[in-house]
Formats: sequence, C-alpha cells, structure tokens
Amino acid sequence: MAESMKGLKRTHRCGELSAANIGETVTVMGWVQKNRNKGGIVFVDLRDRSGILQIVFEGEEKEALIEKAAKLRSEFVVAIVGKVEARSGAVNENLATGAIEIRAEELRVLSESETPPFPIEENSKTKEELRLKYRYLDLRRPDLQRNLMMRSQVATLTRQFLSDEGFLEIETPILGKSTPEGARDYLVPSRIHPGSFYGLPQSPQLFKQLLMCSGYDRYFQIAKCFRDEDLRADRQPEFTQIDIELSFVDVDDVIDVNERLLAKLFKEVMNIEVALPIPRMTWQEAMDRYGSDKPDTRFGMELVNVTEAVKDCEFVVFKGAIENGGTVRGINAKGQGAMPRKKIDKLVDFAKDFGAKGLAYVALQEDGTVKSSFAKFMTEEGMQKLIQAMEGEPGDLLLLAADRNKVVWDVLGNLRLEIARQTEILDKDEYKFLWVTEFPLLEWSEEQNRFTAMHHPFTMPLEEDLQYIDSDPGRVRAKAYDIVLNGNEIGGGSVRIFQNDIQEKMFEVLGFTKEQAHDQFGFLLDAFRYGVPPHAGLAYGLDRMVMLMAQEDSIRDVMAFPKIKDASCLMTEAPSAVDDKQLKELGLEKYTENQETGK
Amino acid sequence: MAESMKGLKRTHRCGELSAANIGETVTVMGWVQKNRNKGGIVFVDLRDRSGILQIVFEGEEKEALIEKAAKLRSEFVVAIVGKVEARSGAVNENLATGAIEIRAEELRVLSESETPPFPIEENSKTKEELRLKYRYLDLRRPDLQRNLMMRSQVATLTRQFLSDEGFLEIETPILGKSTPEGARDYLVPSRIHPGSFYGLPQSPQLFKQLLMCSGYDRYFQIAKCFRDEDLRADRQPEFTQIDIELSFVDVDDVIDVNERLLAKLFKEVMNIEVALPIPRMTWQEAMDRYGSDKPDTRFGMELVNVTEAVKDCEFVVFKGAIENGGTVRGINAKGQGAMPRKKIDKLVDFAKDFGAKGLAYVALQEDGTVKSSFAKFMTEEGMQKLIQAMEGEPGDLLLLAADRNKVVWDVLGNLRLEIARQTEILDKDEYKFLWVTEFPLLEWSEEQNRFTAMHHPFTMPLEEDLQYIDSDPGRVRAKAYDIVLNGNEIGGGSVRIFQNDIQEKMFEVLGFTKEQAHDQFGFLLDAFRYGVPPHAGLAYGLDRMVMLMAQEDSIRDVMAFPKIKDASCLMTEAPSAVDDKQLKELGLEKYTENQETGK
Repeated sequence: MAESMKGLKRTHRCGELSAANIGETVTVMGWVQKNRNKGGIVFVDLRDRSGILQIVFEGEEKEALIEKAAKLRSEFVVAIVGKVEARSGAVNENLATGAIEIRAEELRVLSESETPPFPIEENSKTKEELRLKYRYLDLRRPDLQRNLMMRSQVATLTRQFLSDEGFLEIETPILGKSTPEGARDYLVPSRIHPGSFYGLPQSPQLFKQLLMCSGYDRYFQIAKCFRDEDLRADRQPEFTQIDIELSFVDVDDVIDVNERLLAKLFKEVMNIEVALPIPRMTWQEAMDRYGSDKPDTRFGMELVNVTEAVKDCEFVVFKGAIENGGTVRGINAKGQGAMPRKKIDKLVDFAKDFGAKGLAYVALQEDGTVKSSFAKFMTEEGMQKLIQAMEGEPGDLLLLAADRNKVVWDVLGNLRLEIARQTEILDKDEYKFLWVTEFPLLEWSEEQNRFTAMHHPFTMPLEEDLQYIDSDPGRVRAKAYDIVLNGNEIGGGSVRIFQNDIQEKMFEVLGFTKEQAHDQFGFLLDAFRYGVPPHAGLAYGLDRMVMLMAQEDSIRDVMAFPKIKDASCLMTEAPSAVDDKQLKELGLEKYTENQETGK
Repeated sequence: MAESMKGLKRTHRCGELSAANIGETVTVMGWVQKNRNKGGIVFVDLRDRSGILQIVFEGEEKEALIEKAAKLRSEFVVAIVGKVEARSGAVNENLATGAIEIRAEELRVLSESETPPFPIEENSKTKEELRLKYRYLDLRRPDLQRNLMMRSQVATLTRQFLSDEGFLEIETPILGKSTPEGARDYLVPSRIHPGSFYGLPQSPQLFKQLLMCSGYDRYFQIAKCFRDEDLRADRQPEFTQIDIELSFVDVDDVIDVNERLLAKLFKEVMNIEVALPIPRMTWQEAMDRYGSDKPDTRFGMELVNVTEAVKDCEFVVFKGAIENGGTVRGINAKGQGAMPRKKIDKLVDFAKDFGAKGLAYVALQEDGTVKSSFAKFMTEEGMQKLIQAMEGEPGDLLLLAADRNKVVWDVLGNLRLEIARQTEILDKDEYKFLWVTEFPLLEWSEEQNRFTAMHHPFTMPLEEDLQYIDSDPGRVRAKAYDIVLNGNEIGGGSVRIFQNDIQEKMFEVLGFTKEQAHDQFGFLLDAFRYGVPPHAGLAYGLDRMVMLMAQEDSIRDVMAFPKIKDASCLMTEAPSAVDDKQLKELGLEKYTENQETGK
C-alpha cells in the first residue's frame, strides 16, 4: 500500500513555512494530525517536529486527489506537493503557520497507520503506563518533542561553551571497576574472567581526577552514570551528568566558569538573564535561614532562631530541646493567622513526617488576640518576646519546632516550602540561582556508626579547618559547593584533595584500613605519587536541569526512553530472561535456596 | 611539602606564550620535564598540554630561588612567576616557544613526584603493559595528549556540524534489552527482577529507528556501544559510534550530508581537502577490481579476471576451479618479476592463510624469459594470452588464484595489500575515500545453514531486486553503503525497511519464526503499524576514524582508558571479584560443576 517518495525531495519542514513563502511550490512530508471534509474541500493538518501546517485539497479536475485526501487517517505519513497561499479562512493565531495554507497538487501516502491507542496531543490525559508502553507514539506529542529538542540544545550549547573555554571532552569507561563505597553499582559479569565483574560508573569521578593528574587541564564529559538504587519517586537507573574538572584552580575559578555557562544556557534556551555573580551562601547560613542546603530563595519566610527568646519559658517541649543541646526555631507564615485549626493540624502531621515530635504555633488574630498551642505555658511577657523575635504582626501564623538542630531545620525547611505551595506564592517563571558553599566535610552516620563523606572522600577540607580533623572531624568544613535553582540542587562539586597525606588522613577518618583504601582507590593513590596539580570540578544532573527548564515535574518527561520505578522499560520489556547457557558462560547460575542448603 | 597556589592565578598555558609576550610578567603552572644546572644557572623545561616552555633561574640575590629550582625533579608540579624574555641562548627551532624563556621571580612546588616508572616522552619505547598499568602517566606523553585532543576536536566539530544541519542529539539507553541475534551482549543482572538481565547495546539501531517513527526527523548521538567478543588484535569491549539517522531521505541524501561532514573534519583537523563528491563503487565492482569490500584505492594493482583467457588450458588447478563454478584471477605486481623464489614462497604461504590451496605465479624476466610455477601445463600461446590479459611486461610478477570467487577475492585482495606494504608504495599522508554501495542483502552462513543479514535485518533491498527475495535471496542487493578510507571501513549504513510487510518477509528469509521476531523486535514491529517515515542512517566507528587521522596503529592510542585483549583494565584491575552477598542479591551464585551434578 505504501507509495514511494521517489522523485520527491522535501523542501521545508512544516513549521518553517510562513507568509514569506506565499507563491512558492513546496514539498512537505509528515504525519496527518487530522483531516476534515467540509463540503467537498478536504483540510489536512500535517505535523512534523517543527509544527503543524494546513493543507487544502480543493479544485476542479482534482476529484481523485480530493478523494484520496479524504481517506487519510490520523498518523498516516504523507508527502504533499503544493503551492503556499494566504489562508482562505480565518487566520489561526495559535499556529506559527496560521496565516498560510498549502494548496495540494500531489499527495503520496508513504505509510499508513492503524488507530493509535491514544491520541497524539499536548498535555495528554492518557495514563503514563500506556504512554510508556507505546513510547514511540508518546514521543510524537509536541510537548515531549519540545523537551527533547530543548535537551539537545542544552547539550549542544554546553559543549560549545566548554569547548570554547578550553575544555576537552574525554570519554571514560562504562565498564569500570566496582567499588563497594557509596550507592550500589550495577554489575556486569565477565565471560573471559568468570566470577569477576565490571561495575557501571556512578560517576566518572576517579577518571576525571586521573585526567587532571595526566595534565589534560580542563576536562568535561556529558556522561552516563548508573546507580542500582531502590527507586524513589523520580530516580532513573541511568542518568546523565555534565561532568567538569579543572586544574590549577580554586573555588572561585570553578564558580566563575560555571556561572557563565549557566547564564549562556538560560539566555539562549529560555531568554532569561541570569544576573551574575550568582549569590553565595555558606551551608551554615542556608541551614539557619532556610533549614535546607538547597534553599528556594524565590520567597522569604526565613527561619528564626528563638532559643534565646524562649529559654526562660516553662514550656517543657522548648525547655527539653534546649537542655538536650537543641534549639527552638520558627517561621512566620505572613497573613496566615486565620488558618483553620484543621489545616494547622495537617501542618502538624506534615511536620511529624519529617521527624518533629510536634509543632507549636501562635496564630496572631487581626483583632490583636493570640491563639497558641502552648499559651498556657508562657507568660504574657514571654509570648510577646517570642512574637517580637519573629516579627509577628496581627494576621500572622508563627510555627515553631524544638529539637536537635538537624530535625528542626528539616521540619521547618520543609514546612516553609509546603506553606509556599499551599499559598501559591511561588512564581514558576522566576529562576533564582544560589551557590551553597562550605559544606561540612563529614557527616555522622548513625547507621554505620562512623563519619561518612558528605560529598565524597576526595573533597578538600578548608585549610583553616584542617587542624580539627582528628579532634573534631564534624567541625571541618569542605571546599564543596552546590548550585541550587529554585530549591533544587542542579549541580555540585568541590576542590579535590591533591596531597597524598591529606587523602590518606581522609580515608583514616572515614574508617578505611590502608588495605581497604588501596583495594578500592589504589590506582588513584598511586597516581598521586607522581605530581598532581591542584584541581576542582563540578557535575550537573542534566536530566533535572532540563526538567526545570522545561517546567516539567518528572525527569521521565525529558528522557527519550525512561524506565519506571521498578527499573524496567515498558516498551522493550527489559530486563528479560536469558538462557541458562548464557549464564553458565559467565560462570554463573541462578541462585536457589536449595543449593544453599546443599539439598 | 606541597605549597599552596594561594594568591597566584595562571595567566597562560606554556605553549600559548611567544615572542609577542616579551616583557610581560606571567604565571605559568605545569610539570617539570627536566632541569639542568649549568654553572649556577638552572634551566627548567616546564610542560603542560599545550607544550614546553623554558624557565631560567638566574641572577643576583636569587640564591634561594636558584637553589630551590636546582632541587626540582622530573614530574614535580610547580607554579612559576616570571618575565618573558627573548631566549639568551640559541633559539630552539623544535619548540613552538623556542624563541623565548621565562626569567623566574617566584617558584612554588605544588606537588612533588617520585621517579616515574618510565620516562614521559614521545614515541615511548616502554612496553605497553607497563604504560597501561600507569596509564595516568602514559597519558602525560605528548603524542597521546595530541591524540586525545584531536579526538575531542573531532567530536566537537561533528556535533557542531550535525547540529547546524538540524540533527538532534538524543540519548538512548545503556541498560537495554538483550537480543540473541548478532554478537554477544554484555549482560547486567537486575536486582529488582532477580534472574532477569539488561543487555548493553551493540548499537542504538532500534532506538534510532524508533526515534524516526516518533518524528524526530534527524538524530545523532556519539554513543557508547558494547560487544562481548573474543578480542581480536584491535577490538575493545566498549567502543564509540557517531550514530546518525534521517527521515524522508534516500541513499543520496545520506551520502551528501556525510560527505560534507567528512570534508569539514579533515579540513579543520588535518588541513586536508577532501574532493567532493567522494567516488562510489558498487560492492560487485569493489570485489572484482580489488577483492575487497573496503578497497585501498591509493594504488592500483587491480584484480584481473583471466578465467576466459585460461579456460582452455590443461592446468588442473585452473580447470578444476572453473569447472566448479569458480574463477581464475590475478594481480600484476609491477616490477617484482625478479622477486627471489623464497619471497614468492612466503607469498604463497600468505595466500594459504586466506584459504587458497596454492598460488600460481608468472615471473616475467627483464630478458623476456618467463618463470612460472605452471609453465609446463601451458602452451606457449596460452601463456602469452594470459600475460596479455594481465598486461604483463618484462619485470612484472603475475600472481594467480583459482577457486570459488569468495576465496579468490579474499586471497588476492589481501595479497595486493601485502605486496603494497612490502614494496612500500602506500603514502601515509594520502587520504583516499570511497563509498562502497549496493552490498548483497544477505550472505549464506555455512555455520548456521541459513542466510544471515550482511548489515542487519532492517536493511532495505533495492526495489528492483525485491522480486528475487524468495526465488534467489542471494541475488538481492541492499541499499547499504560503507564509507572506506585507505582500505579501512570507517562507517556504514543503509536505507531502512519501513514497511511492515517487507520487514516481516525479511525475518522470514532470515529464518525467524513470527514468535522469535516478535520476542526480539516486537516493539519495532509494533511501532511500524502506526505510520513510519522512510528513513536511513549511518554510523562511524569514532575510535578507528581518529586512529587513522592520528596515524596510529591501534585504537588504544586514541582512547583514554583502553582495555587489553582479555578485556581487563591493567590500571583499575577491572573486572574484579564481588561478594557472594552481592551476587545473592542479584539472584545469582557462582556456577560450579558440583552443583550441576547435585553433589
């Protein structure tokens, strides 16, 4: 049934035509979006990745052509030769090509289509599972096409910019060495070495540091990375990093080049001016003011430490927290003083999800009275002192948490965002960048009963904090920085340790024996014996960055072939079973309880 | 021991300085290539990726500085502040910076180095195993640095060109579906679905065709691909493809855009003009004239079919071959008529390696006499007829093979190259491109006793040959093309089947049951039901292309971190053992004979 395109050559994509082409004979090819037969005149909307174009089949001695056009159905692939004319009907303001139409002279049906399982349209209401099963159809939808085109543009601009700045793109291996530290690696069994495995890289971290050792000076790669994690809401087993590393630099140099990259991307892709320099804030300040290491700075509602103000009150929740070394902090939800009790209770539940034992509140009524969950424990004077500390005014709602700092920050930081969402004060067209700097080098892991690296074990401590590394490791700050956009961490990095003695000390603090360190990172430690330049880098999560630029809610909407939560692909049905023979070739077999017990 | 670079900012890379900078105070940083103490004046050669720069430590009141410089050793990393001066000694013509030197005012040792296990120098004599173990040092060598910089440039230019031509770079999954067809996949066990496996892609073929179905129109990707093969001389378990696909096109469109890409790359990277259009030759002509589907057209020595000329002779080897449906063909090694018998014998052995039962020769002496391995079976007239057919002249050596065409082509095609190598007629600075077109669609596999796809099962037959697909499948030619450079296939592709009925027929011819086809390619066949544009594509082996541009003999020399023949990495020692616990989590355990027998 398919006709050949022989002798035809496409002259334009649909969306490339405009009133400037009126009078030209053109050849266009694409998919039938829809066709209508209006009193013997057939109108076809033709779609390709550039847009939609109206084709008219009309005229004397064109009966056969019109009849053929009338039989077209959605998603047929056609080639059309015709003349560009000013639109005979009303101009369609919604279409870039809305002022013109093509008067068809020839029509070829290159490929027919069955009725698709869901309509090819923007903002599809079809449930995601079905769309992912037929991803090749889903990917025809204009919103997904815009997203993937934007992603391609972001990658292209990034490469151009970095290349112009003297960065070399160097490919590092996908079949790497598995390391037990960090998240779980995907493993690849070796056939030539049965019982041995490659690990897919969680990032090219070690390789890019080696490239600095090797004198490549400025490296980047848009690199696939892999983590075999239990998938949370919006994780993918494979994801893409813009990975950057520079030699002979310190924090400011990394920040400078990356700010210019971000400014270029947002200007060229979205026509948004990013004011440079991007503000910086230490981790400590971010936690104190926003209760988050990735604060959304599009709005205020900052945390206030009221420990001092309430330290003499009799409220046991406050008192107990302070006595245990914690703090009392609050946020002022301006104008929310009249929030119904039920809604406040929901906020209390929300806070509990983040580890709060409770949430104290003070609702300042417009009439000057005060409703509070803990008024009875407070003197009039104590309450006024608290309200003053939080700059409370009639109509405000003060929400307070008392606990260890970590819990207080987490609760109020999230509460702050929740109230912003509820009160719809977030402007989705505003893009606020922020550097968060001077992260703690280490964090205590209750689970592992040891310090773990907050970024990774190669992060450089601040020179002035090195003195505490044995006596008070938790106090040591790192030359680490994250770039935050509207409350999302889109990238992060650090200056690296380049001195063997500091690196060894770091492993020691992390509880690695010399052997463990050598087994896992021996080649890096070896490399460090032969002259290492000071170096630093940064990596962006490309998926998340493009997701934010495209104003999507899921990174699945900015990837061509994503997997679902259980890490499977609904379209290809990967992963799938393989022959036992193949397994045997790899020196493996399926694990059975039976064999374990030897029965 | 390491000093800090605090307060210093590099102003130039070493190789960026020239006589134009004389008088400037600069800050440079890099590795000590060597230092010499000449009567109290210390000369240091400082190296970075851009080149080598001479630093002079000399002057009154600089004793401490000079002493410090004298203690520098190879591969120390240093920062130097100094003034650019005209070189006091003889200008070094071998260095780009040979006319200048830096008079040092400040020296900081950023990182010391032990003595490296081999010297960091061009054209290293150190054996490759040792260099690969210390790859981070090997990668400091200027020749490897040039190669990786060239590779980065090729990738950058390719992306720019394709992006300007309307191609979108779209990432396809690394964790894909394993397919039994073709080479062996690397498998990745799934933890969430124990007993199931992902396959690493051998190419993004299916995904790029799906992207055409989805209307992306023009796609490219510089993509990692994987094959778990027994490694031959110069294969790597992972390699990189420049992968391209276009919609609404035929052969000429693909060739056009790719010729312009190649011309741009060779012009900008190597300053070589590629004359366009690149010549084309059908597969049949390539085999007949060069005995190869990737002929090196830098020289002649073409095959001559002498079947007709010798068909009446009594030489049983010729006779037998012709009677069995084969041919007799030869090449004329001009000027090699005096080749010693021993050397000819070696050529005979060489021919046998390629399946020849023997190799007949006629050595035409300068004095007009003829030495031949089969003279006694030939009449004088017959011999003259043969010599004439091969345009033999005094001083020439004629080499003849008689067998099935496939064997004859292979033997003479390789012999032709071998003689060219021996006689050194190949110009390594000449770059001859050639398109080989109209490959056979299918080839008969003795091993599998069925036809297999010569390119892959999605390759479009020539319209005029479709009629033979049932009756004489071997006769059907394909819309497939390879791009050949100096006898190396650097890329290949085809117009794809986009009609479901032809695709199903193709699977039938290849001996797939409907179920097998559906199990493996079901999603592609499904996609083909919903409107498919005509499409075609091509993929380059980036590693090999850069290897040829860099005039290297191995793709290992154009990859940052290659693996050796057994697919292991000598630096990281991947692949490596993992815990049984990790295996168990994947639903696997090590295969033991013991368990198989149940004992």
